[in-house]
Amino acid sequence: MEVTRKNYKDCLNTVYSAIEEADFLAIDGEFSGISDGPNVSALTNGLDTPEERYTKLKKHSMDFLLFQFGLCTFKYDQAKSKYITKPFNFYIFPKPFNRTSPDIKFICQSSSIDFLASQGFDFNKVFCHGIPYLNQEEEAQLREQTEERRNQHANGVGTPSFISPSSSKGSSHVPEEHKDFINKVVEKVEALMVNSEKTLDLEPCTGFQRKLIYQTLNWKFPKGLHVETVETEKKERYIQISKVDEEERKRREQQKLEKEQEELNDAVGFSRVIHAISKSGKLVVGHNMLLDVMHTIHQFYCPLPEDIQDFKEVTMCVFPRLLDTKLMASTQPFKELITNTSLAELEKQLKESPFKSPQVETAEGFPSYDTAQEQLHEAGYDAYITGLCFIAMANYLGSFLTPPKAYISARSKLIEPFFNKLFLMRIIDIPYLNITGPDLQPKRDHVLYVTFPKEWKTSDLYQLFSAFGNIQVSWIDDTSAFVSLSQTDQVQIAMNTSRYAESYKIQTYAEYIQGKQQEKEKQT
Amino acid sequence: MEVTRKNYKDCLNTVYSAIEEADFLAIDGEFSGISDGPNVSALTNGLDTPEERYTKLKKHSMDFLLFQFGLCTFKYDQAKSKYITKPFNFYIFPKPFNRTSPDIKFICQSSSIDFLASQGFDFNKVFCHGIPYLNQEEEAQLREQTEERRNQHANGVGTPSFISPSSSKGSSHVPEEHKDFINKVVEKVEALMVNSEKTLDLEPCTGFQRKLIYQTLNWKFPKGLHVETVETEKKERYIQISKVDEEERKRREQQKLEKEQEELNDAVGFSRVIHAISKSGKLVVGHNMLLDVMHTIHQFYCPLPEDIQDFKEVTMCVFPRLLDTKLMASTQPFKELITNTSLAELEKQLKESPFKSPQVETAEGFPSYDTAQEQLHEAGYDAYITGLCFIAMANYLGSFLTPPKAYISARSKLIEPFFNKLFLMRIIDIPYLNITGPDLQPKRDHVLYVTFPKEWKTSDLYQLFSAFGNIQVSWIDDTSAFVSLSQTDQVQIAMNTSRYAESYKIQTYAEYIQGKQQEKEKQT
Ligand SMILES: Nc1nc2c(ncn2[C@@H]2O[C@H](COP(=O)(O)OP(=O)(O)O)[C@@H](O)[C@H]2O)c(=O)[nH]1
Ligand SMILES: Nc1nc2c(ncn2[C@@H]2O[C@H](COP(=O)(O)OP(=O)(O)O)[C@@H](O)[C@H]2O)c(=O)[nH]1
Repeated sequence: MEVTRKNYKDCLNTVYSAIEEADFLAIDGEFSGISDGPNVSALTNGLDTPEERYTKLKKHSMDFLLFQFGLCTFKYDQAKSKYITKPFNFYIFPKPFNRTSPDIKFICQSSSIDFLASQGFDFNKVFCHGIPYLNQEEEAQLREQTEERRNQHANGVGTPSFISPSSSKGSSHVPEEHKDFINKVVEKVEALMVNSEKTLDLEPCTGFQRKLIYQTLNWKFPKGLHVETVETEKKERYIQISKVDEEERKRREQQKLEKEQEELNDAVGFSRVIHAISKSGKLVVGHNMLLDVMHTIHQFYCPLPEDIQDFKEVTMCVFPRLLDTKLMASTQPFKELITNTSLAELEKQLKESPFKSPQVETAEGFPSYDTAQEQLHEAGYDAYITGLCFIAMANYLGSFLTPPKAYISARSKLIEPFFNKLFLMRIIDIPYLNITGPDLQPKRDHVLYVTFPKEWKTSDLYQLFSAFGNIQVSWIDDTSAFVSLSQTDQVQIAMNTSRYAESYKIQTYAEYIQGKQQEKEKQT
Repeated sequence: MEVTRKNYKDCLNTVYSAIEEADFLAIDGEFSGISDGPNVSALTNGLDTPEERYTKLKKHSMDFLLFQFGLCTFKYDQAKSKYITKPFNFYIFPKPFNRTSPDIKFICQSSSIDFLASQGFDFNKVFCHGIPYLNQEEEAQLREQTEERRNQHANGVGTPSFISPSSSKGSSHVPEEHKDFINKVVEKVEALMVNSEKTLDLEPCTGFQRKLIYQTLNWKFPKGLHVETVETEKKERYIQISKVDEEERKRREQQKLEKEQEELNDAVGFSRVIHAISKSGKLVVGHNMLLDVMHTIHQFYCPLPEDIQDFKEVTMCVFPRLLDTKLMASTQPFKELITNTSLAELEKQLKESPFKSPQVETAEGFPSYDTAQEQLHEAGYDAYITGLCFIAMANYLGSFLTPPKAYISARSKLIEPFFNKLFLMRIIDIPYLNITGPDLQPKRDHVLYVTFPKEWKTSDLYQLFSAFGNIQVSWIDDTSAFVSLSQTDQVQIAMNTSRYAESYKIQTYAEYIQGKQQEKEKQT
């Protein structure tokens, strides 16, 4: 089901109940880009530590926009022995809520945009009809603002933040230069009170003048008036004053309150879906989902914390139970059976023996996806097949039980080992980021950190280390790389030979980490 | 005429001849945003110097994308006493040309995107079918790369940049770890030479391996082979080897050369239109065109220079003759007659007495715009009505001649006073940036630079200066503003009274400029 700003409000209850009834959820995001600095391979160095990877992604990937969010809910139907799916494809765009709301800037990376364009992505749906959102702080601010405005209008006194330091004379103080203006307004209102008109439209004026009008009228005419700010077609704001009896006045105030509440909810927008996912506590499945998780938190909850430990804690609040199908497919017993863990290939392989295509059915009223007709890189479809992959792999685990079980639920102990471990792309010796515990710390005694002139190629490194047998090169940037030797005891020999080299420099991995640590301490 | 990547090549000659025959050109750009930092009013402070304004726009506005470029050519037809117009609306997008071409990142500002969306802007046309472009340096680099690749393939020796520092043994040197691979390729080619096959497709391999294959084959089989890199559907690159006689080999080389040349021109893309405009030396008209000019140079020529003087020089190279209709409308004799100089309003007012609607006709084969059905904020339309405004104002100047003239050409002396002066938005006392000379230096002796706590409002400033009569406030940010007093001799009094103030601080404008200058010197 496609969800945009136009049908969002009508769909919200459908989304809520789909989440509520589900056994597990699958998600996927599409972004306006991946890296605003280093190219992708420098961003994902084979010998990053989890902390380095997190820091790089946070620094270089978070200013892009998550502009399509796929959610597919899976509910097991015992009677049919099938999962019933409800796929949603949300278009997201931070349309400014009003004149004071944040005017979000985001980056687009041409290669990513071009890739999505080639897949038939509909940018107009994003930019013209995307659902807005607020993070928690923006939401709190907006609630506060609304509250303040309400108080100000209601009693005319103004909350402290509206009293500027010098105008301590309080609510009735009108600065000299506005006195004329305000007196004329009062005269007009006095006329309104005795003539036969029902309403009076004032001329458009500044926000400060409007504030003065509210204060003055509330003070001079505590009863019999309803005062409201209205916007012209040209977005000029003016004040409309209506004569009303007390009952009508209260009714209007109530109406206004409800309208404000609704506008507020509209502004929180898509974040409400994420809040519902969090609150449900359901298992959330994704494929290679670290960036999806980071973007979701960054965009709909809070700016990402500096420290990876804090990030893990926030993640557990937002997504209490995660499972990454790329990590699952790269782990025993799947590792030996699956040659290519990219989502499309994985989905194909899991249809073949020894795996079994999961039995699924799209819920009534939802457009059904056909995996034969690939719609890859539409977030809703990607979430859907991610869910299929999870089911196929989970059920495969059931085949080892005695007696074998054809259906393994999302609550089964069998899948617990895969919980809360997010796949770390291309890191040679650390398969995952462990959200609920300390990360693996593999030995890197055989790794050298080499710096050299930027004319060097991989072949120069092979040549330099030709005496050491098989080596593995992990480029960092165009003047440095990690070189992994096949034998740790050769490290010292390499270090010794390099002592007098002028064009290049070698450090052990331990020295490199120490240097980085010192740099970090210097900065703080 | 709408021009995208799809019809761009077919249109190019139409564009060239329209420019060539024109009396003048009108342009307009649409951008993905305006400011990535300060809000618009801080970006356009009423007391900026031209230099400050340029520096701020360069810093905060150039990372957005100019993604729609409007060009409308105007040619006067003596017989018909009418201008014949050819409007073009180009969609622009930096689609990466190949794997090594720059992967441009650009910013989008939600309020700008939302505004364009509300005007019916078609983002899919931009992102899916936008015409690519290169600036001068990128173009030069690409030409060089192509040249190098050609040399390498032709003689197998490799130009210096392909010889890495340690592989000084020259072209025939194959690193140890690739020897096996290359030997197998040679065996396969030897088989090809004697069997009945015409072509041989090698397995996909790395760029370095391809380089080695080219070098080895050119050296071992100088005749009878054509070697070419081909891309699979999955974008994997592999080498295809064909048996050919000498004539066929030359023909294929020639074909390849032509194809390379064409690809190169395609990559330069939209920049070629800008080059044609520059070369024509025609008068280029725009409305409030400083940002259009800056973006055009930045995107299609070169990164903007630090120094405003250098910017003026580059501008004169790219656009030898400019005219800004907003500046013209804000200058005598138009200033008194025109109350609102925004493009849409200006166009309307210039239809009324004492002005005359210009006589124009759309050239055959071009869709004609109807000014009654406003299509504002489509760049092609905006360029079109900018041209109309220019004609109406120019012709109005003719009415002062004796005898009055109804038609004033773009070459008339009457419009020379308006050349090369770009409107400076919202600056109180400097109407324009003078591209061909020094800028105006109005006295600012009556201006104070005031800093204060961020709780202050405009009313606090009015209160603070209440003894000084009429003042004018120009906000800089939320803790500083310029305050213009109505009388210069009050400046000293204000300075004296503020001496012991704690919550705020006052400096004269001269002190403020001096402070800024010192800061700048410290940085360099
Ligand atoms: N000096 C030099 N730098 C390289 C070479 N290959 C890769 N790099 C650097 O390492 C980064 C990552 O390279 P690589 O892993 O090959 O990925 P790719 O450049 O994205 O295809 C590149 O952006 C370069 O900065 C090379 O042969 N010589
Ligand atoms: N402290 C304070 N800052 C203000 C006030 N009004 C404007 N500013 C600052 O000056 C900047 C420009 O303000 P203004 O010219 O009113 O334009 P706008 O904020 O874009 O509508 C704002 O972004 C604020 O940083 C005010 O009343 N108090």
